[in-house]
Amino acid sequence: MSAQRAEAPLGVFDSGIGGLTVVQAIAELLPDERIVYLGDTARVPYGNKSPETVARFARQDAAFLLGRGVKAVVVACNTATAFALPALEAALEVPVIGVLEPGVEAALGRTRNGRIGLIGTAGTIGSEAYQRAIAARRPGAHIVPRATPLLVPLVEEGWLEHPVTRQVLAEYLGPMLREDIDTLVLACTHYPLLKPALREVAGEGVALVDSATTCAAHVAGRLGALGLAAPPGGGCGIDIYLTDRPAQFERVARRFLTAPIKGIEVVALPE
Amino acid sequence: MSAQRAEAPLGVFDSGIGGLTVVQAIAELLPDERIVYLGDTARVPYGNKSPETVARFARQDAAFLLGRGVKAVVVACNTATAFALPALEAALEVPVIGVLEPGVEAALGRTRNGRIGLIGTAGTIGSEAYQRAIAARRPGAHIVPRATPLLVPLVEEGWLEHPVTRQVLAEYLGPMLREDIDTLVLACTHYPLLKPALREVAGEGVALVDSATTCAAHVAGRLGALGLAAPPGGGCGIDIYLTDRPAQFERVARRFLTAPIKGIEVVALPE
Repeated sequence: MSAQRAEAPLGVFDSGIGGLTVVQAIAELLPDERIVYLGDTARVPYGNKSPETVARFARQDAAFLLGRGVKAVVVACNTATAFALPALEAALEVPVIGVLEPGVEAALGRTRNGRIGLIGTAGTIGSEAYQRAIAARRPGAHIVPRATPLLVPLVEEGWLEHPVTRQVLAEYLGPMLREDIDTLVLACTHYPLLKPALREVAGEGVALVDSATTCAAHVAGRLGALGLAAPPGGGCGIDIYLTDRPAQFERVARRFLTAPIKGIEVVALPE
Repeated sequence: MSAQRAEAPLGVFDSGIGGLTVVQAIAELLPDERIVYLGDTARVPYGNKSPETVARFARQDAAFLLGRGVKAVVVACNTATAFALPALEAALEVPVIGVLEPGVEAALGRTRNGRIGLIGTAGTIGSEAYQRAIAARRPGAHIVPRATPLLVPLVEEGWLEHPVTRQVLAEYLGPMLREDIDTLVLACTHYPLLKPALREVAGEGVALVDSATTCAAHVAGRLGALGLAAPPGGGCGIDIYLTDRPAQFERVARRFLTAPIKGIEVVALPE
């Protein structure tokens, strides 16, 4: 039974395409895993919606993946993790892994002065889920949060190293840099694509902690500990399901994901 | 029967809050109209979604308004107008008024050199609905379209006259200004809030045609011609229905709408 479940695919969902940065990191770290990805592109983004609505969408997303027989669910969306992870953990019979805990652990491992900047959607920042998780582990930590809603549109416009993007980053990061942060948590799966511009604006002295690579490492550890790691030779590309297929989806998706795509299908979610 | 229908409310829908600029313009021009507004804030935006998905959402939005007994439906969303107006006109038993025709008529009335710039969401521009409508009326017109997906996020961030916004506008409008446009169609209901910055970047020589005021004038004309104009004394604030109520909705909405709000209610749409 355990061997059979190890061979089952790993489910990953996100509000749209940002979670493909997490898929890419998992595919690099765990090339034997079969990955089923759901992007809720008909209702994207989640970051500017209410906790109740995001939690409802997340339940529907997870239910779809369970219907595909996944052995575990990765919530590759910071907003959905912030608003819905405990409820999903309680409701689902498979392991559920979010992006928050891995990012928090990595940030606390990297900071030397305990001063941590945090950027994400209005929903993620407003939820205070990251702030609470950091404070619970290190009560003396000084956290400087900022909702940065222009960054996802800038990434999707492809302006990754555009002067406008650097100017927006300078405005968003200025106050936290003046508060002497030495670590910046990128609490949104789109933001790894901005790392070169972030590095330039934040300077070499600030460690960048991204959701994608930290989550992938956490997934590897959890699957190994649970005896759910895929046997060798199983991985053969990503199955992508979307709730809407906008024009130029593949062109944009390719900024996020270079691992092979097995197929792309548009689906309706269970209510 | 006609008198009774004239007293019925006027329905207006949009993907989110941008359509409130249209509501504001209607409320100023037609203070006796009772307005029922639906913002599909759970699925906003429409501008980056496929024609099929936008058309499905628009049908659901219109069905909700019909359930509230409206005498006419105003599609206060350029993307929904571009993808779904003919289908809605065919399906609904009440008059349907979109934002496209009024904007096109106004642009053709304003331009002297027949060189017209057009900005909107990726969906609106990609649909080519405006381009076709302009070309049908004035075959020799030179149209310079540009999808400008960063403008809605900049408006919602409140950076209406921020240096970043002027820089983004300069980049988006530069090519069309070099093509000597004398008229710019703001084919998105968020954009009227950027008029001061647009005026600055485009210069005094370019006429700005916005969806909100042109649509309101068209609504007034249509209701009058159909004998559906509200009798005096009927207007008493806007009934707002939303599919999600995000944090700070009212703060953001107040940038778009100064007319009195009667109530705000979160609703589920018919499938």
